[in-house]
Amino acid sequence: MSERADGFTLDEIVSRLGGELIGDGRFRILQVATLENAGPAEIAFLANPKYRKHLKSSQAGAVVLAPTDAPGCPLPCIVTDNPYAYYARVAQLLNPTKQAPSGIHPSAVVESDFDPSVSIGAGACVGRDVRIGVGSVVGPGCVIGDGVTLGAHARLHGDITIYPDCRIGARVIIHSGAVIGADGFGFARETDGSWIKIPQIGRVIIGDDVEIGANTTIDRGALDDTIIENGVKLDNQIQIGHNVRIGANTAMAGCVGIAGSARIGRRCTVGGGAIILGHLHVADDVNISAATLVTKSIAEAGTYTGAMPFESHRDWLRNAAQMRHLDEMAEKLRLLEARLAQLENKT
Amino acid sequence: MSERADGFTLDEIVSRLGGELIGDGRFRILQVATLENAGPAEIAFLANPKYRKHLKSSQAGAVVLAPTDAPGCPLPCIVTDNPYAYYARVAQLLNPTKQAPSGIHPSAVVESDFDPSVSIGAGACVGRDVRIGVGSVVGPGCVIGDGVTLGAHARLHGDITIYPDCRIGARVIIHSGAVIGADGFGFARETDGSWIKIPQIGRVIIGDDVEIGANTTIDRGALDDTIIENGVKLDNQIQIGHNVRIGANTAMAGCVGIAGSARIGRRCTVGGGAIILGHLHVADDVNISAATLVTKSIAEAGTYTGAMPFESHRDWLRNAAQMRHLDEMAEKLRLLEARLAQLENKT
Amino acid sequence: MSERADGFTLDEIVSRLGGELIGDGRFRILQVATLENAGPAEIAFLANPKYRKHLKSSQAGAVVLAPTDAPGCPLPCIVTDNPYAYYARVAQLLNPTKQAPSGIHPSAVVESDFDPSVSIGAGACVGRDVRIGVGSVVGPGCVIGDGVTLGAHARLHGDITIYPDCRIGARVIIHSGAVIGADGFGFARETDGSWIKIPQIGRVIIGDDVEIGANTTIDRGALDDTIIENGVKLDNQIQIGHNVRIGANTAMAGCVGIAGSARIGRRCTVGGGAIILGHLHVADDVNISAATLVTKSIAEAGTYTGAMPFESHRDWLRNAAQMRHLDEMAEKLRLLEARLAQLENKT
Repeated sequence: MSERADGFTLDEIVSRLGGELIGDGRFRILQVATLENAGPAEIAFLANPKYRKHLKSSQAGAVVLAPTDAPGCPLPCIVTDNPYAYYARVAQLLNPTKQAPSGIHPSAVVESDFDPSVSIGAGACVGRDVRIGVGSVVGPGCVIGDGVTLGAHARLHGDITIYPDCRIGARVIIHSGAVIGADGFGFARETDGSWIKIPQIGRVIIGDDVEIGANTTIDRGALDDTIIENGVKLDNQIQIGHNVRIGANTAMAGCVGIAGSARIGRRCTVGGGAIILGHLHVADDVNISAATLVTKSIAEAGTYTGAMPFESHRDWLRNAAQMRHLDEMAEKLRLLEARLAQLENKT
Repeated sequence: MSERADGFTLDEIVSRLGGELIGDGRFRILQVATLENAGPAEIAFLANPKYRKHLKSSQAGAVVLAPTDAPGCPLPCIVTDNPYAYYARVAQLLNPTKQAPSGIHPSAVVESDFDPSVSIGAGACVGRDVRIGVGSVVGPGCVIGDGVTLGAHARLHGDITIYPDCRIGARVIIHSGAVIGADGFGFARETDGSWIKIPQIGRVIIGDDVEIGANTTIDRGALDDTIIENGVKLDNQIQIGHNVRIGANTAMAGCVGIAGSARIGRRCTVGGGAIILGHLHVADDVNISAATLVTKSIAEAGTYTGAMPFESHRDWLRNAAQMRHLDEMAEKLRLLEARLAQLENKT
Repeated sequence: MSERADGFTLDEIVSRLGGELIGDGRFRILQVATLENAGPAEIAFLANPKYRKHLKSSQAGAVVLAPTDAPGCPLPCIVTDNPYAYYARVAQLLNPTKQAPSGIHPSAVVESDFDPSVSIGAGACVGRDVRIGVGSVVGPGCVIGDGVTLGAHARLHGDITIYPDCRIGARVIIHSGAVIGADGFGFARETDGSWIKIPQIGRVIIGDDVEIGANTTIDRGALDDTIIENGVKLDNQIQIGHNVRIGANTAMAGCVGIAGSARIGRRCTVGGGAIILGHLHVADDVNISAATLVTKSIAEAGTYTGAMPFESHRDWLRNAAQMRHLDEMAEKLRLLEARLAQLENKT
């Protein structure tokens, strides 16, 4: 993570990223920071009203904020409708991705030809008929199978495996340990209980601007392809089964599991550790809470939850014991209601 | 995933795989496909009665089906008692595993001797006293520790780590990122709360015909071995603790965790994200549903479930609030019943 | 996993590790084993009273036990207050870590200078400005980014990735497939639902004596660092989000997920598959049960649980159906109580 040593003036920032500047544009910013911790060479942001109280005491050199927060702001500020998104852009400007040296490291084993702008790291193994777009980086130790396509300006960190014939879009970022295109979990069962492998002949197709976390796995399709649409963001240790389709700009937190052939809509969010069962459809703009098990399709946008609340182990023991008697309790309630109604009629 | 360019005639398929052919045996099949999507050079299958309706409109060149579905089938068909298993075999026939070049890649670092039929990929590191059976493939970037044994016709995809002294059977398939034989999680606690590592001196023993998914981890035993019996199929991102034993032909979906010393029976299935606690015994032919936490041993075959149903977040908030009062509710019910009985006696 | 071929006498063991010996100190011990399985050259331990019954029939050469279990013990024994911790130390003595050859393997690509005692395995890639303490081992296929610091006598097994600028303490053990320092999951959302990456410019700081399991991932901080304090033990497939802080000597079982900015106390334990949401604080000495979702901060030491009990699928279907009606049931109870009270007043 490098940073431009001499930073940018507020004028330079606004001329690149837009927004309205209030204050001295010659002021120079070196880094981003939180409102509480920022020093005079750092720019902070205010997106959540509950942090407005920090504005007065902040030592930040400048602050990015919304029009409603601008009046009375004691610091130089950049006014914009979406301060958090603006802050992200400033952070990118001040912390450009470190350039990897272009060309093929002599220790890499590469059986395809690439544009000289492509960087292939030490010890990487790249198969035949692989196409890689300009400016892309394949980190050390990556294993790229035959026939893989990788778009321009993509970045594969170290130790990633891409199985043959997968297609990955432009500006995709994949973190270490991710495995793209391993066989889906497809077996037919014999009458004696043993399993026969069904060859997985589909591919994984990943759109543009997707980010995939460390040790996340995305299986290739059985017959058709597994598809990750543009702008999807997957955190670490996520498992995506074969023939899943994930709609554009959907984001999933760590440890999520999506079973085979599930179809997830666009702009969804899935909380950490949630599981979505196979062959389900989830509509656009659905939010699944952490640790929720989704057992049937969801047709309407909204937030859905299925987690068990936690409590002290002693209390849990008492309450959990009743969970196995809920049906009985409901029946008892019905009986009580009937008996009570009878009594009420009598009296 | 390659395919034989000129495919097989129906006669050739039946002569290799059995089944009864109805129709023209000279018809040539190039690939498998679903009943809905198959074209005239493709063979489909019908295993689930609910897809029978697609039979009439299917463009498939042929279809594999059960005796009950054969009468009136408008397509050439192969009749067999287990169409899905037969389909898997046809799919294997049409999509043979791509051959890896035999021999040791010059960039591999190998300290043992192998049969010339063995393939060791680029950048792989293979230790001393390693034995590998004929026709086996060790993919690029694999790290195979000293004293490991790997059976014949096994396939290790790229970037797999096998710790020293583990034993792996014939025809085993292991996907990228899997780690076999790392130390089990064994520590003794000091009175100040710090932990002392207990050396993990057991091994991992994996039987024949096992398949292990991407980024799955199987820990070595503490004293005795961790054992995965023949025909077990493990999906991606599964964690198997030390000294676990998994019975033959058991299959587990992604993200399952099996804690140390659990003993799982034969022909079990475990749904995605399920957790089985340590030292438990699970009988043969048990099915654990997705996301279920197994907290005690299961002595009888059957299906077991423990997940919380999901609902809209608003409804969940209301219902979840009561989950911490179930014991109280049960007590209130008892009191109501008693009071009601008293009233009933009075009137 | 090597062992010293001629073992140690009981006298030698006690002179190194302390404890009171009862029996012949010249007796030679080659290995550790369980009380049930130990042979005459092996030492066992008795920590749990329920195994006391095995003492009489054990074939062990000696046994480590507590003062209360010593009277009447038929075997030579070492008496100590914490037999399990003592056993761990004996096991370490008898099973020293196998030495890796010091120096840099010719196939490694190394851009920094190290003490000759450091071992860098085949195919490892080590960047610039990396510092590694004496006696440390970097396994085959590891990828160590620029500016990483690794303490003395640390052991990185094969195929581990450490992103740039992370700092790792002395005597740390990291297992294969672990990824330390990948980008945290930080994005700002545009009004059209797309995401803008927020550069993750913090680091991962790992203390001394930490052990990290296979395929575990620890993300670097967004602005500040992610911190793992001394003596923390993490099992396999754990996900630690950005800016998390884990207190000294806390231990977590496999498949745990800790979301960003959570702060976990010292000496905590977290059971397998548990999820702790972001920005929460968990006090010292808290035990979280397996598969529990922690949705709010925990201020007091103790054990906390939130799992759904499992049962036969048939029973679960009946009970689960009621879980969506708990609020309704509570309301019905309230009504019944009111009606009953009215009746009671009448009669």
